[in-house]
Amino acid sequence: MKFIFEQKFDVRDYECDLQGIVNNAVYQSYMEHTRHQFIKTAGLDFAELHAKGIDAVVAKIEIAYKRPLKSGDKFVCKLALKKEGIRYVFFQEIYRLPDMELCTKGKIDTVSIVNGRLGESPEMDEAFAKLL
Amino acid sequence: MKFIFEQKFDVRDYECDLQGIVNNAVYQSYMEHTRHQFIKTAGLDFAELHAKGIDAVVAKIEIAYKRPLKSGDKFVCKLALKKEGIRYVFFQEIYRLPDMELCTKGKIDTVSIVNGRLGESPEMDEAFAKLL
Amino acid sequence: MKFIFEQKFDVRDYECDLQGIVNNAVYQSYMEHTRHQFIKTAGLDFAELHAKGIDAVVAKIEIAYKRPLKSGDKFVCKLALKKEGIRYVFFQEIYRLPDMELCTKGKIDTVSIVNGRLGESPEMDEAFAKLL
Amino acid sequence: MKFIFEQKFDVRDYECDLQGIVNNAVYQSYMEHTRHQFIKTAGLDFAELHAKGIDAVVAKIEIAYKRPLKSGDKFVCKLALKKEGIRYVFFQEIYRLPDMELCTKGKIDTVSIVNGRLGESPEMDEAFAKLL
Repeated sequence: MKFIFEQKFDVRDYECDLQGIVNNAVYQSYMEHTRHQFIKTAGLDFAELHAKGIDAVVAKIEIAYKRPLKSGDKFVCKLALKKEGIRYVFFQEIYRLPDMELCTKGKIDTVSIVNGRLGESPEMDEAFAKLL
Repeated sequence: MKFIFEQKFDVRDYECDLQGIVNNAVYQSYMEHTRHQFIKTAGLDFAELHAKGIDAVVAKIEIAYKRPLKSGDKFVCKLALKKEGIRYVFFQEIYRLPDMELCTKGKIDTVSIVNGRLGESPEMDEAFAKLL
Repeated sequence: MKFIFEQKFDVRDYECDLQGIVNNAVYQSYMEHTRHQFIKTAGLDFAELHAKGIDAVVAKIEIAYKRPLKSGDKFVCKLALKKEGIRYVFFQEIYRLPDMELCTKGKIDTVSIVNGRLGESPEMDEAFAKLL
Repeated sequence: MKFIFEQKFDVRDYECDLQGIVNNAVYQSYMEHTRHQFIKTAGLDFAELHAKGIDAVVAKIEIAYKRPLKSGDKFVCKLALKKEGIRYVFFQEIYRLPDMELCTKGKIDTVSIVNGRLGESPEMDEAFAKLL
């Protein structure tokens, strides 16, 4: 797995639930934000794509939770990318900083919906070609 | 204050923060959902209005927090409506069920943005006329 | 798959993102709320368990996204339960109402952390025994 | 108004709603995160205070919404602090970067709940004394 992008974060207290740890669903949001920041580095923009009728949507998500993040923690979300058929598959791992303990590991399969239909987006193919 | 609509809710555990109580910002979401359900009873729909170029936006919000809601609580959000100039002002109170303890009290000033400009929306005026 | 519990919901507009559909992470929250409501019917309570030092935590989640939910949609989240080793595995499916189109399908593996250590919780085993 | 702290942010796409702008409740979360980061610079920690039986809770919030933030925006949340009786009052303004357009303006009244009762927290008084 070759990570090609990473995004740093601070845990925000409102992201923690009554167990005092970051709520499970929030990791999925961290991973989404990381993907959207990543595609900007490839010259794409999630909101602009949507305005053009191209929606990158998540088809499947698998997340393994290894170690919870807590109030005050800093962490980094790393990202690798692979193309499988018409899917772009993102491998994303979250490591606590500075000790680099693995917290969460995700595999996110995305597909393109172009003008309402499942399809391939030449914009994405071109933007990601050099990164695969 | 004459309440003309109410919406019942259950606290969801993910809405509670590490203090074990519903996070402050979430009450604003409860109030928003109550307003959007209310406008449906008046024949309007928030998403459809947006698609037509009419956005009801919040100009000001004041919320007084009296008593926190906790995991397991049920509650009701009551709503009153007043027109002040071009603003529709919503008065919203949240009461815990079944003991009807007042938890939160809000005043939400909304304005209409019609095709990108501050204005009045005849759709809303007509829909709300009979309710004021 | 024998579903033993279901929870009905309305989409709330603040759960939709700029694509105009429910944000992916929110389905995970819907599923969490459904599990927490379910365990109440088995005589358990997530917040009380936490206060006693017993935390049910998610070890792994897999969600397949089939069809997005939109503003105004109503839906039901159905739940089945299986024990696999020390894990309780929840199978959860979200169907749009009233047409019962499948929207999302999840498999959530949970483990118990008892006083900070991975373990089995006799409270849960007893509560769930009659449901398996 | 003398601002004594500021926190920079990027809008995350999942914070935007179907109007394509940051949802109103999210600004309240931005302001909360800014306050919690601020109190760290004063040597306090929200989660640690909670563990010691001291909860800083919001009693009242007023937010004026001037200009919406959108996908891709960067912004800064500035903070000023005043003591009024037993309340700590935070004045918080959110400015879009880099053009420094004012987006949101908040006044947040907080009180201390010490071991379940409204009171004053010597820890906070001491930490904030030099900042007022």
